[in-house]
Amino acid sequence: MKVVLLGAGNVATNLGLSLKKYGIEILQIYSKTEKSAKTLGELLGASYCYSLKKIKRNADIYIYALKDNVLEEVISKINIPEAVHIHTAGSIPINIFENKVKNYGVIYPLQTFSKEKQVDFKEIPLFLEANSDYTNKIITQFACFLSSKIYYLASDKRALLHLSAVFACNFSNFMYLLAAKITDEANLDYKILLPLIKETADKLNYLTPKQAQTGPAIRKDYKTIEKHLKLLKNTPELKEIYALITNSVINTLSEK
Amino acid sequence: MKVVLLGAGNVATNLGLSLKKYGIEILQIYSKTEKSAKTLGELLGASYCYSLKKIKRNADIYIYALKDNVLEEVISKINIPEAVHIHTAGSIPINIFENKVKNYGVIYPLQTFSKEKQVDFKEIPLFLEANSDYTNKIITQFACFLSSKIYYLASDKRALLHLSAVFACNFSNFMYLLAAKITDEANLDYKILLPLIKETADKLNYLTPKQAQTGPAIRKDYKTIEKHLKLLKNTPELKEIYALITNSVINTLSEK
Repeated sequence: MKVVLLGAGNVATNLGLSLKKYGIEILQIYSKTEKSAKTLGELLGASYCYSLKKIKRNADIYIYALKDNVLEEVISKINIPEAVHIHTAGSIPINIFENKVKNYGVIYPLQTFSKEKQVDFKEIPLFLEANSDYTNKIITQFACFLSSKIYYLASDKRALLHLSAVFACNFSNFMYLLAAKITDEANLDYKILLPLIKETADKLNYLTPKQAQTGPAIRKDYKTIEKHLKLLKNTPELKEIYALITNSVINTLSEK
Repeated sequence: MKVVLLGAGNVATNLGLSLKKYGIEILQIYSKTEKSAKTLGELLGASYCYSLKKIKRNADIYIYALKDNVLEEVISKINIPEAVHIHTAGSIPINIFENKVKNYGVIYPLQTFSKEKQVDFKEIPLFLEANSDYTNKIITQFACFLSSKIYYLASDKRALLHLSAVFACNFSNFMYLLAAKITDEANLDYKILLPLIKETADKLNYLTPKQAQTGPAIRKDYKTIEKHLKLLKNTPELKEIYALITNSVINTLSEK
């Protein structure tokens, strides 16, 4: 099973490293910038190119781990209709491939990827979609190399899952970032927060997020909330976020 | 070292279990409701009371793990001036004890506590403050029984640390809760998000929150952001939170 990997960002880097680890042949890396293509190519010991015209035509699978906004254009320009084409984007429907290639599908890894920290795909839930039984077989076989957690999910539900992941990951990480701004202000190292952050995440192995919710908002402790809003009076953006989320916690729990 | 523990909520329960584990004698549990006092008393094999008048006067240390808004009243009514009095609240200054008792201080555990999930105090950072060298010694000795991570922090900085913890823990957990609402809508089990949530928290062992930030906002992927806002059109509260946090991610990163 020979693979061409298009992209050299966070997803492509982590995916490439896992492909290599599991012995899948990476024929070539493509990225539109020479430097990125070269960096990932060398990391994976694979050839690389930075022109779509130079993409090798003899791979079995073409994986598009590109930014969402360039995906359509790149797919249109590849023109290797007989291979299997797979994108990895949570928010892009499968029909982006329609009328461009014969065999296509999606493998959406539900995970956050950074180049600086390698993750193992083994435990990552992969959400698959394919345009035919034939493609489905190939994509499933390929996905099984990477992970033991394979699910099938249609584009509309994948879009919701991706949105959900933005809250669960990107927004929760941004809460860490804002927390770190505040510890900075107090001349404390944000790393002091790590046991708290770890426990907050770990709790969900035992409790639902509703059961796990603690803090002044769920206690309707308006006195503490007022104190916090005062502490944030010089940072109106943080204050607005604090107020909105606090109100939402209170509203969500009065729904009970 | 004999302790009376006032409170039977999340903090008191977890603290009581750790005190017991480390062999510190719990003389008595107080809670204003009989049921809570009894439940925790029986859990810890300690006597209990639900009237402030029945609190035993022969303890060395009185620990107030109460709701912030009742703390002042309870402290005023105890009237055992010769013992050491400690509260555990992040947002309450040490001077709440002033002119009420002689020896007093604070042990603020930087952690999230739920009755349903026991945590070990050993790894929890404890932030101490005391009104004198004498009290400081006793409080430090006591805190060292519980945890190996002892810090000293004045009330004003502790207030900021507590505010920071609201973002790092309460608000990030609320992001999980909102994420779970969306997976519900897609008929998916929210537990599918757990590897993502775990990795998001784990990343901070290797990367700063700024380095760890991923997602459409940091990529300024306005097309995906628009799609997400459309998916949220029937839930205006979620939509407002999505828009505000997304804008804040974009603003915070343009500050660079």
